[in-house]
Amino acid sequence: MNVVSYRPDPSEFAWTFGGVPPVMKVKPGDVLELWTEDAFAGKVTSADDVVSRVIELPFVNPQTGPFFVEGAEPGDTLAIHFVSIEPSRDHAASCTLPLFGALTSTHQTATLQEPLREVTWIYEIDRTNRTVAYRARNGDYSVALPMDPMHGTVGVAPAAFEARSSLVPDAHGGNMDTPEMRAGATCYLGVNVEGALFSLGDGHCRQGEGETCGVAVESAMDTVIAIDLIKGRSTPWPRLENDAYLMSTGSARPLEDAFRIAHADMVAWLGEEFGLEMLDAYQLLTQVAETPIANVCDPNYTVVAKVAKRHLPSGEAYARTHAKLKEVAAEYRRGR
Amino acid sequence: MNVVSYRPDPSEFAWTFGGVPPVMKVKPGDVLELWTEDAFAGKVTSADDVVSRVIELPFVNPQTGPFFVEGAEPGDTLAIHFVSIEPSRDHAASCTLPLFGALTSTHQTATLQEPLREVTWIYEIDRTNRTVAYRARNGDYSVALPMDPMHGTVGVAPAAFEARSSLVPDAHGGNMDTPEMRAGATCYLGVNVEGALFSLGDGHCRQGEGETCGVAVESAMDTVIAIDLIKGRSTPWPRLENDAYLMSTGSARPLEDAFRIAHADMVAWLGEEFGLEMLDAYQLLTQVAETPIANVCDPNYTVVAKVAKRHLPSGEAYARTHAKLKEVAAEYRRGR
Amino acid sequence: MNVVSYRPDPSEFAWTFGGVPPVMKVKPGDVLELWTEDAFAGKVTSADDVVSRVIELPFVNPQTGPFFVEGAEPGDTLAIHFVSIEPSRDHAASCTLPLFGALTSTHQTATLQEPLREVTWIYEIDRTNRTVAYRARNGDYSVALPMDPMHGTVGVAPAAFEARSSLVPDAHGGNMDTPEMRAGATCYLGVNVEGALFSLGDGHCRQGEGETCGVAVESAMDTVIAIDLIKGRSTPWPRLENDAYLMSTGSARPLEDAFRIAHADMVAWLGEEFGLEMLDAYQLLTQVAETPIANVCDPNYTVVAKVAKRHLPSGEAYARTHAKLKEVAAEYRRGR
Amino acid sequence: MNVVSYRPDPSEFAWTFGGVPPVMKVKPGDVLELWTEDAFAGKVTSADDVVSRVIELPFVNPQTGPFFVEGAEPGDTLAIHFVSIEPSRDHAASCTLPLFGALTSTHQTATLQEPLREVTWIYEIDRTNRTVAYRARNGDYSVALPMDPMHGTVGVAPAAFEARSSLVPDAHGGNMDTPEMRAGATCYLGVNVEGALFSLGDGHCRQGEGETCGVAVESAMDTVIAIDLIKGRSTPWPRLENDAYLMSTGSARPLEDAFRIAHADMVAWLGEEFGLEMLDAYQLLTQVAETPIANVCDPNYTVVAKVAKRHLPSGEAYARTHAKLKEVAAEYRRGR
Repeated sequence: MNVVSYRPDPSEFAWTFGGVPPVMKVKPGDVLELWTEDAFAGKVTSADDVVSRVIELPFVNPQTGPFFVEGAEPGDTLAIHFVSIEPSRDHAASCTLPLFGALTSTHQTATLQEPLREVTWIYEIDRTNRTVAYRARNGDYSVALPMDPMHGTVGVAPAAFEARSSLVPDAHGGNMDTPEMRAGATCYLGVNVEGALFSLGDGHCRQGEGETCGVAVESAMDTVIAIDLIKGRSTPWPRLENDAYLMSTGSARPLEDAFRIAHADMVAWLGEEFGLEMLDAYQLLTQVAETPIANVCDPNYTVVAKVAKRHLPSGEAYARTHAKLKEVAAEYRRGR
Repeated sequence: MNVVSYRPDPSEFAWTFGGVPPVMKVKPGDVLELWTEDAFAGKVTSADDVVSRVIELPFVNPQTGPFFVEGAEPGDTLAIHFVSIEPSRDHAASCTLPLFGALTSTHQTATLQEPLREVTWIYEIDRTNRTVAYRARNGDYSVALPMDPMHGTVGVAPAAFEARSSLVPDAHGGNMDTPEMRAGATCYLGVNVEGALFSLGDGHCRQGEGETCGVAVESAMDTVIAIDLIKGRSTPWPRLENDAYLMSTGSARPLEDAFRIAHADMVAWLGEEFGLEMLDAYQLLTQVAETPIANVCDPNYTVVAKVAKRHLPSGEAYARTHAKLKEVAAEYRRGR
Repeated sequence: MNVVSYRPDPSEFAWTFGGVPPVMKVKPGDVLELWTEDAFAGKVTSADDVVSRVIELPFVNPQTGPFFVEGAEPGDTLAIHFVSIEPSRDHAASCTLPLFGALTSTHQTATLQEPLREVTWIYEIDRTNRTVAYRARNGDYSVALPMDPMHGTVGVAPAAFEARSSLVPDAHGGNMDTPEMRAGATCYLGVNVEGALFSLGDGHCRQGEGETCGVAVESAMDTVIAIDLIKGRSTPWPRLENDAYLMSTGSARPLEDAFRIAHADMVAWLGEEFGLEMLDAYQLLTQVAETPIANVCDPNYTVVAKVAKRHLPSGEAYARTHAKLKEVAAEYRRGR
Repeated sequence: MNVVSYRPDPSEFAWTFGGVPPVMKVKPGDVLELWTEDAFAGKVTSADDVVSRVIELPFVNPQTGPFFVEGAEPGDTLAIHFVSIEPSRDHAASCTLPLFGALTSTHQTATLQEPLREVTWIYEIDRTNRTVAYRARNGDYSVALPMDPMHGTVGVAPAAFEARSSLVPDAHGGNMDTPEMRAGATCYLGVNVEGALFSLGDGHCRQGEGETCGVAVESAMDTVIAIDLIKGRSTPWPRLENDAYLMSTGSARPLEDAFRIAHADMVAWLGEEFGLEMLDAYQLLTQVAETPIANVCDPNYTVVAKVAKRHLPSGEAYARTHAKLKEVAAEYRRGR
């Protein structure tokens, strides 16, 4: 087993998917021990920080990477298994941002109204109880919320020579902001360029579905991933798998198009893996889908279509890739 | 305790919310034992039935009601607690319908493409194991899916002198198609006209989130509800409560507007019940919301914003209405 | 020629399409001299009037009608030709309304921001020069804008037993708010119920495309129409015709669906009238369509797809109905 | 006057905005004589060409450029005046493309239906009469349509280190596909990177509003532009000006957001140039806007908000830039 450790210097952060040279080469089968900075580039440390003043655009949502995967070519699929995701500091932060979020006008949903007030919340992290502490800024309500660490942003270089801001989710992955990207999940990404050039970042100690105000409980993360490459099989939109579920994602506007992409992809996937006829798959999906909204705040909105494996024919997706990467993860844990 | 039983004759079905005289008067505190026909008006009994031929538009989605609630006036809130929802036949049905559903063009999302093929699936109901049997029409895959009975359609007469088709969800409730409308839940509906004039129907043995193809596992239902009236308190969009969650709904197009309505209503509700300041509520909601999509197929799409009570300050919504209706339900069960 | 004059008393206004008994019977070929109140029900007469205070919801946008057209049955098409539309007072009014309009959050596009300020503008009408006078409320800019009188709202009773607020545009017509509904145009509406039950109102001295703030230059109108009935031909969405153009409308959300409906209907109409094959019509439309947005503020948004007759094969739509109604209009004018 | 001529070799085409080195440096005040290839990269020459086979993705919509404008820095505005746009071949082409266009499902508006058939139309160009000849593929209808040459794609390098496909319109301009980009118009683009790096392409002999099927009358073009730089003034979204109109554009999904962006930008612009208070500008715009839809087929949809100068206070936008560039154009014409 080849274990690679990498902690980027701030000067090495990537701010886009695509358009950035790789920080290193890795191989299918490698395990990567990575550190990712938080979406604020580490600049929010106190409830007195006004985010729009401490952040210098476009330097938000720094990514760790990109990594060049040896052998990866357009038409292949990259598999990234999350072995562990753990906050690397004792606090995390969230905030309202002017003209960003689902319950405010934005630069796209443009209105003539005043923006909402900017407020910052600091969450203390309790590693023993695995909670984060919400405290109201007005009044004295506080509550310990379960920690559920995840990466908001995982992706590869896009197709068609594009470079996309790390704030954008699309067919290349990117800023999908789904809580399903937690330890134990495997993410499948279609490869668009030689080497795949994947990056990740935007750790969240937790977030609600939809990431309503646009900002989760943002945290730097120590993250371990195991990677694999599925040659000669393309994946049109990011897919995820964990022990219990197959998941397709869609990222688009309006939100119903994100829903359509995710569910049409799942119909196709059920055909690919289990031979279900298209309308039979459509019917089954209609009755069993679980569909957590990921984000309703980013430049594209993201929806995840989940199907529990217990409702599906027997068989393994992507030729047992998830199972194999879990074995790699187990071996890695034994080796520590 | 006053228990009312009512089984409509087909000639008594309502096809709209509003515009229909009440079938009877009921009182806050009453328990109603009701029967609702399935959305096909009972006309689909075999996989050979082509739905667009056996159904005569606009006679789809018949409702049981409306009921005139004594004392209900505009500005009040009607509470409907679902004591039990049980399929009243041994089979249920689903289908694809031309130009209806999330993964097809429709009369609104109009394209020049051919519609999808019409196919019908019949589900056998196993009451002992509480499952419904999915069987592929092509190939031999079948699977027993857990039964999770619910009502797709619950609502009151709309405001502004409108009468809306029973296919439409909006601020008056109607065809929201959320799996959260199951036994144990209390639904809060703002009253728009004297007597509230509520109806319900569209039973589903189960459905996935989004009701992707537009048709769930459709079934006639024997349903028991307990009702209450909250005087002098308005409810702008339908809300639900069960033992674990508060839930707000939004129904609109595009889907992000349904999301916005539901979450903005939840921010308001958290303020009303617990005194949380608006931005504090927005922040908390961002980190704890669970947001199942209800439907992406009806004339408006529906989203449900859920907040677990364990994350909230102590206190009871709507002055303990849910708890009181559970006590009525318990008394009803003891009396049978 | 049968000329009918009708000026409703305020107690006779209709506030919905559907759900209202007819005010009188009329016959195909009749000419109707009508008066319509403005959308404010006449209650805004000074720039000091705060609209949300002088208006009592839901009593906005009063309609004149409905009229029962003898012989009209579901599946027929009603043709309404606008002979003349003239403001009946010396002033008109516009305003901003809280949470209404394209550049503000609304009850559907719900945000947590403060609504815009309420302001009223009064326009003086200059009949000689056929202008209306815009005057800024701040500063001293004023400009005489050309008068271009039109009806925002024209429709029939909807299908499926529905009654829709006069604020709503949909397949039955209603509050489409298109400047194309001016004198010289013929509007075709599919009949859904016996007698068609058409109404009209919401006169505008002029409006921009999109009716951005949600309120045009609102005015009571003296309007003359000539009506006809096309038996046995259905019209799925409102269509218009004038001497130079055929026009299809679509009303839906999101706005692209309104676009899709209007253009798909035009493809179908070009096939019906001129035998153009579907993809040939699609191609021609792509290169010649003029597509004024009607409104981006009402419960559904409306788009109009226009095709200049000079680009089309020779032939007359709806068997010369527009030409025949122009002859009726000419005869009426001679008779005055 | 400095006149620069440039005709790219196919190997010099740009396929993105951003991410491409400049082909040359130019200066404010220069006149550029350019040639642009058609969106098919010149590969469609016969009605027998099936576009999805002769095109090799992502090599569609080649751009001429980018040009580095000396002195241009982020925060400045680049002005491009179109002196002339003339087709450079005797024919032009259009087609249906699978899963592209407004009246079909797409990769985003994903459905399970079959795509539309692929068909190609060739238009002969009559330079004398300035028409293009539409000929139906089925039946014998043909019609000469007025030529109205324009560029579908004009833009600068985007902000935030992005590179965007030439098919995408956004705040940097790009594939807006508006017929307003014709000779006589001046386009204002906010500069995001040093040198601005502007490109243009995608000539259309004409197109309808909305570019319904996604493909206009596509043609290579000989185009002359005059450029200028407005230092220290930013322009958030592309604006246009001609002798009669000021125009703001918005590009987004859903289409109402494109509308909102364009109209909110126009409200801001009217304030910047003429001092109109925000709500006064909103009101005036509501009554005078002309709002041609540009495209409803590209990755973002585009809307143009136009205000006739005759309705506005006296004064010149951007300190007479349009007038000055017209003088340059006149001098250029005299010099030929």
